[in-house]
Amino acid sequence: VGAQLWAKDLPLDAAIHRFTVGDDPQLDLQLLSWDCAGSAAHARMLGEIGVLKSEEVQSLLVELKRLYGAALAGELVIDPRLEDGHTLIETELTAVLGETGGRIHTGRSRNDQVTLAQNLWTRDAVLRIQQALGLFAADLLRFAQNHRHTELPGYTHLQRAMPSSFAMWAAAYAEALIEEIDAGQTVLARLDHCPLGAAAGYGVPLPLQRKRVASLLGYRRVHVSPIDAIAARIRHGLAFCEWTASIAGVLERFAWDLSLYCSTEFGFIALDSAFTTGSSIMPQKRNPDVVELLRARCRQQRSYAFELAQVGSGLPSGYHRDCQLSKAPVLRAGLSIQELLDVAQRVLGAVRINETHCSGAMSAELFATEAAYVRVLAGEPFRAAYRAVGQELASGSFQRPPSKSVQASLGAPQRPGLELLQRRLLRANKAARVAAQRIDQCMQALWL
Amino acid sequence: VGAQLWAKDLPLDAAIHRFTVGDDPQLDLQLLSWDCAGSAAHARMLGEIGVLKSEEVQSLLVELKRLYGAALAGELVIDPRLEDGHTLIETELTAVLGETGGRIHTGRSRNDQVTLAQNLWTRDAVLRIQQALGLFAADLLRFAQNHRHTELPGYTHLQRAMPSSFAMWAAAYAEALIEEIDAGQTVLARLDHCPLGAAAGYGVPLPLQRKRVASLLGYRRVHVSPIDAIAARIRHGLAFCEWTASIAGVLERFAWDLSLYCSTEFGFIALDSAFTTGSSIMPQKRNPDVVELLRARCRQQRSYAFELAQVGSGLPSGYHRDCQLSKAPVLRAGLSIQELLDVAQRVLGAVRINETHCSGAMSAELFATEAAYVRVLAGEPFRAAYRAVGQELASGSFQRPPSKSVQASLGAPQRPGLELLQRRLLRANKAARVAAQRIDQCMQALWL
Amino acid sequence: VGAQLWAKDLPLDAAIHRFTVGDDPQLDLQLLSWDCAGSAAHARMLGEIGVLKSEEVQSLLVELKRLYGAALAGELVIDPRLEDGHTLIETELTAVLGETGGRIHTGRSRNDQVTLAQNLWTRDAVLRIQQALGLFAADLLRFAQNHRHTELPGYTHLQRAMPSSFAMWAAAYAEALIEEIDAGQTVLARLDHCPLGAAAGYGVPLPLQRKRVASLLGYRRVHVSPIDAIAARIRHGLAFCEWTASIAGVLERFAWDLSLYCSTEFGFIALDSAFTTGSSIMPQKRNPDVVELLRARCRQQRSYAFELAQVGSGLPSGYHRDCQLSKAPVLRAGLSIQELLDVAQRVLGAVRINETHCSGAMSAELFATEAAYVRVLAGEPFRAAYRAVGQELASGSFQRPPSKSVQASLGAPQRPGLELLQRRLLRANKAARVAAQRIDQCMQALWL
Amino acid sequence: VGAQLWAKDLPLDAAIHRFTVGDDPQLDLQLLSWDCAGSAAHARMLGEIGVLKSEEVQSLLVELKRLYGAALAGELVIDPRLEDGHTLIETELTAVLGETGGRIHTGRSRNDQVTLAQNLWTRDAVLRIQQALGLFAADLLRFAQNHRHTELPGYTHLQRAMPSSFAMWAAAYAEALIEEIDAGQTVLARLDHCPLGAAAGYGVPLPLQRKRVASLLGYRRVHVSPIDAIAARIRHGLAFCEWTASIAGVLERFAWDLSLYCSTEFGFIALDSAFTTGSSIMPQKRNPDVVELLRARCRQQRSYAFELAQVGSGLPSGYHRDCQLSKAPVLRAGLSIQELLDVAQRVLGAVRINETHCSGAMSAELFATEAAYVRVLAGEPFRAAYRAVGQELASGSFQRPPSKSVQASLGAPQRPGLELLQRRLLRANKAARVAAQRIDQCMQALWL
Repeated sequence: VGAQLWAKDLPLDAAIHRFTVGDDPQLDLQLLSWDCAGSAAHARMLGEIGVLKSEEVQSLLVELKRLYGAALAGELVIDPRLEDGHTLIETELTAVLGETGGRIHTGRSRNDQVTLAQNLWTRDAVLRIQQALGLFAADLLRFAQNHRHTELPGYTHLQRAMPSSFAMWAAAYAEALIEEIDAGQTVLARLDHCPLGAAAGYGVPLPLQRKRVASLLGYRRVHVSPIDAIAARIRHGLAFCEWTASIAGVLERFAWDLSLYCSTEFGFIALDSAFTTGSSIMPQKRNPDVVELLRARCRQQRSYAFELAQVGSGLPSGYHRDCQLSKAPVLRAGLSIQELLDVAQRVLGAVRINETHCSGAMSAELFATEAAYVRVLAGEPFRAAYRAVGQELASGSFQRPPSKSVQASLGAPQRPGLELLQRRLLRANKAARVAAQRIDQCMQALWL
Repeated sequence: VGAQLWAKDLPLDAAIHRFTVGDDPQLDLQLLSWDCAGSAAHARMLGEIGVLKSEEVQSLLVELKRLYGAALAGELVIDPRLEDGHTLIETELTAVLGETGGRIHTGRSRNDQVTLAQNLWTRDAVLRIQQALGLFAADLLRFAQNHRHTELPGYTHLQRAMPSSFAMWAAAYAEALIEEIDAGQTVLARLDHCPLGAAAGYGVPLPLQRKRVASLLGYRRVHVSPIDAIAARIRHGLAFCEWTASIAGVLERFAWDLSLYCSTEFGFIALDSAFTTGSSIMPQKRNPDVVELLRARCRQQRSYAFELAQVGSGLPSGYHRDCQLSKAPVLRAGLSIQELLDVAQRVLGAVRINETHCSGAMSAELFATEAAYVRVLAGEPFRAAYRAVGQELASGSFQRPPSKSVQASLGAPQRPGLELLQRRLLRANKAARVAAQRIDQCMQALWL
Repeated sequence: VGAQLWAKDLPLDAAIHRFTVGDDPQLDLQLLSWDCAGSAAHARMLGEIGVLKSEEVQSLLVELKRLYGAALAGELVIDPRLEDGHTLIETELTAVLGETGGRIHTGRSRNDQVTLAQNLWTRDAVLRIQQALGLFAADLLRFAQNHRHTELPGYTHLQRAMPSSFAMWAAAYAEALIEEIDAGQTVLARLDHCPLGAAAGYGVPLPLQRKRVASLLGYRRVHVSPIDAIAARIRHGLAFCEWTASIAGVLERFAWDLSLYCSTEFGFIALDSAFTTGSSIMPQKRNPDVVELLRARCRQQRSYAFELAQVGSGLPSGYHRDCQLSKAPVLRAGLSIQELLDVAQRVLGAVRINETHCSGAMSAELFATEAAYVRVLAGEPFRAAYRAVGQELASGSFQRPPSKSVQASLGAPQRPGLELLQRRLLRANKAARVAAQRIDQCMQALWL
Repeated sequence: VGAQLWAKDLPLDAAIHRFTVGDDPQLDLQLLSWDCAGSAAHARMLGEIGVLKSEEVQSLLVELKRLYGAALAGELVIDPRLEDGHTLIETELTAVLGETGGRIHTGRSRNDQVTLAQNLWTRDAVLRIQQALGLFAADLLRFAQNHRHTELPGYTHLQRAMPSSFAMWAAAYAEALIEEIDAGQTVLARLDHCPLGAAAGYGVPLPLQRKRVASLLGYRRVHVSPIDAIAARIRHGLAFCEWTASIAGVLERFAWDLSLYCSTEFGFIALDSAFTTGSSIMPQKRNPDVVELLRARCRQQRSYAFELAQVGSGLPSGYHRDCQLSKAPVLRAGLSIQELLDVAQRVLGAVRINETHCSGAMSAELFATEAAYVRVLAGEPFRAAYRAVGQELASGSFQRPPSKSVQASLGAPQRPGLELLQRRLLRANKAARVAAQRIDQCMQALWL
């Protein structure tokens, strides 16, 4: 135990070993179950083309299923001497099954094996994130519905501009997140190319049935080119990380709004005290740290794509060990965005609106544009109406027009379009669920 | 002429004016035709809801069509005093049509107007880039077909690993680019939300028919939330820029390979002399500068998304002038990637393969894995076969196995799967073309 | 005219030519005068070691001085057929001086020539930026002095925390900028290695007097290693771009504060109307666009270092044409930060403080920490005092302690330390001026 | 135990608590000893101004010294319920010293306390990195000396260009690293502003002797502005991270060269077998994984500055919890670059030069420039000589000029300037050592 699979009895400098192993023993805990699943599909296919005997396949499936369960239950530990999780699995199989364990790597390289496990992990992460997006978007629409008539100044340039409402505010984030659910489908489409059979990047001189493995694992396409299958690990990882950063971009603005709105000066909201912290020096403070950390973590979320782009560029084709460093940013991006969505959703639940402050802020100049349009509907050209209202404002004679005179377009405070957004959300959720179910069925059938 | 639309007769510091205007007069030349198109749709809708009279709509359409043509022909110039292209168009309309020109801005803000023009420009750029991707991918598959039997070492860790071929090499890039054509569809899906009617970000107190405008401009969805419609300008721009960076990531590796392959040491290819440059000091040099610039420009392509992410973050909701700086990176990213695709395609046409060097590099150790698999097919477990071949190599007794003994899996040198990739390319091209035609028809019908 | 210096009568694809030339004809206008200076020093040294005759040196210096003046006066234009500015200069010299013009490139390659010109340009930019920093810091200290007694709430977590003042606020930016003046010295120290003589990166087989050239151009060190002299172009460019980004980070916060402070809700300041703009739809708006653009441009300023890091990495040693793309980000970073410093300084001059709003915002809880410290000075442990004041605040019995009871530490509102900062500014300015004068004298002596 | 110092008996959502605590309990292990040192200096000053009694100071120093030792020995553990390391220290002090422990936080906020600890940690990291740079640069110069006559082709555009040598190659990296030692001095100069007394960012209403604390901790300056002292945490962190990235940029190219040189095609070097790894599929492979990981980690090193720039921007002045996320990238950048320098140095020791391959690659065209200069020294203008040699090369009549005819400039293969570089290294090392010793003496005197 402990020898690298490729060792040829040569000493390896201990510091260098630690350096090359890096964080893999910890990161690979995320990948172990997916490695078992990939191995199961590979074993079944090897049986079907006669490379493995039927009883070998059966015993491998039994062991892999056991390890799969242990991995999901968090019961496996990766000794740094074993380098990574893939070695752990193969070592375990060989320990129990002897020579049969040694046959599982037939027609496979560490390169396509790792790429497959990372692809499967990422695919699963997309599905989980889509689900979290759906739940938070639903909460936002519910919040919008509940605060349909709570007016709020709309700001441009941080200056009071036109009337808005908490319904409009929450609906904005809901619509953005619905778009992100749909965007997740594309990440899935990129990932939907099974890399197994790419081996080290130049295919395998064995008559593998690559389409069969793909189908067992719920893929609709084989990644035909072995060279690109290996290269795609970076490209697919980037698409995933960038998607999580796009989601984080939405949440960042959400958090910034909350930070601003709970200042004394704006004062539109407060957070439940369980969501604020104190100061070590100032007795009076209740700080919205959670909102600020959410905001900063959202900006930090971009780092994963950045890091991945750095390690993944500057290289000719073919596998280089550089690519191994693509694993950490992908896994961390996926785990981080799930935490951020969870926190954002909890924070929304902790928002308490200060209605008095909100209505107190609805000063007359917010209605200047409405007044101009009342004139337009009465026949004035817009530029003339604009100037006339401007003069009223300057002379102090301006008054808010009666609200019954206003007919609004879709999306405006009077017509926030919540039902339309609700329908879009249901449609987006359904598409995501269909994909998830199809994949789920494949994964369950894998062990039969 | 020269007064800002919003001017209230206050002096504006000249240096500050130049600073706020920035590059808009130059960048907006790209957007002028799209601004005309957006205005045409807006005018038609205003006519339909009775805000403009039928003859006003007609005269606006005539003028807008004229300006649209002039913009496409590159005949318009934006005076910095006019600030930007939108002011130019409105100024021209007012000069010709008088008060009617002043009515075109009814129910619209500069914010949604700019967002619309940028969205339309970006949508068009996606379609053009998809087309360029399709052409280059076709060339790559043709190159692969032509060099189907040109062997080449496959490298991992820059060490000779397994047999490859120029067909495999080119097919790898083709497959990656086909994926990018499909990924373009998602960028289109994000963009497919018409922002007009968002006004300054809080909607319009007028009964605009937003769905009608959307439909006239070939959109299938209205961007319901005015707040998010304005915010989406950054998010959509990022998705576009990141897509172009993903394409560039493929081209970067392509260029790196060429750079390496035309070194004396590798020597697999040469470039047509029209594609090389000399040295100002060394008489013997013919340098592949174009390949190196292509490679560097591909890494630079990431800068657009970076710049956009910087200017677009760190802000609460609502329009801030910061957002204006999103225009340059989006336009430059689109123009740049089109140039890079064009250059890459030309460079591929200038590649001359040195067959002698290629076959000379096919040393025996490249076939070690094949030899191991010949043993596996004869019943040895893989790990045992691996060790046996390793000993043959160490003792110098290793010999390349007879090639007739090899059965390859899909993607390997013997079965590069070019036909399958060709079918996928046709399918991807067709989907892109359908989208392009639908949009094209709308844009033509707009002026009727 | 028009042939590249290295041309060997081979056709060059026109699109490829345009691609390889890129933005050089425009960017090189910045470098022309520095190229002349570098050539003058090189010519003088060649004369001293006998490679050029004395009269050749004289005629070259006369022509170079003429071109130097024309370049500074903006009278030179670079035809894209000439590729770049270095070719322009050499072409001009040859046109006037015939064979003598052809001798100027002796012992030099385009690589070290370009590196030298970029180094000289950057060195000059550092000196200019240091000067601008000094001027703005002085304005900030003057502003602080003028508003020494204008109280302002100090915020943490955007919550009112402790008393602050406009003097403290402006002094913070002054101190940060003084640090940046000093940091400029390091950029200068990095740049202070003369690259000429590195040639293409492997030195020159001629007995050049590299130290003499260095000394003529005001360098204190020769860049000994030709390989590193070429590589350093990226490293030095990065140090410069990162320094400009660090300055921009200070200005960004300055701009964010102004944006926040001129909102209705905070209302601490207004900007002169010449520094605000209107809205195309909302008659009441006066927007601080300039402050927002300043803020966004400061975040964008990071893009230059990013772009440079991308094009400059992923490569083995030796010159690659990739490096050519380092020019644009360095020049643009330098020009941009000078504009930002100028705009920030003008904006500071346009700030009008609303004293009423400021003092109105000095609510009692800002003094809670003071109250706790009054107890501490009376002997209570801090944690106990903290809890006692907390209870007073909760029960509504809290009162602001009398201000005469407060003794403050350096930097606090009562002791902002303006004189100390003023002394540090003078010292930093002096160090920068000494460097500038030494270099200036060398550059003037060059033409004698 | 376990209550936050600021707790006011309010429940805190558990998931939110975990989110706000983040990685602090792990990261703060790095900072504990520095927090003890900062507290010791603070306590001594509080004693000197009479806020603490002499015996209180003594008992605090005894406890802090014990905790300091325990921290350095890795014996402290931070329970997540305690939030962070600062709370651990204060909790321990209070447990042992009772009310006296509660007095240590007098005149201090968590903000300046954390900033101080991070500043002290970073300062120490700079000194360690400078030392590692000095050791590696010395090894490189020794390597250069040992291989002074090992010729190697010099490449530009990856094409053979001019003669080089392994001495030139190693000297290039040495010179770059010497520059980095000097650049470290600037990072130190930025850090050399003691933040203690900034409190929450607005100073302290107590007559603290800030200069005394600064001097006890080895600082030469007080950070006068409390606002900027807090903001500088980001700016100083960035300067540090960017410095480490600049070093990594040098190491990246070093690693890329090694990767290229140990390919079969170049074949200039091999690595000791202890520094190579095998393949799980290809029996013949010995891969330089360590060199590739080094290269990738060097590109990844840029991520720390990126991450820090993201979390640190987009904010008005004053402390925001966002800033807390600055800690991780700074600490990780410092630890990572030390590992990379160590690995690079070990790798250099494992390089075995293949002299036969090197001399075999010294083909005639490498000497074309030399031949042109032989003509120049005989009186031909350079451009004419350039063309004449070009014609010899084209006609096949070219011959390498006799080496005795060549006089080289400083830095060229014949005069690599190793002694000059050695002198510069000693000077840089000495400057770094002087700084280190001064600081070391202060830190030791602190506990007296």
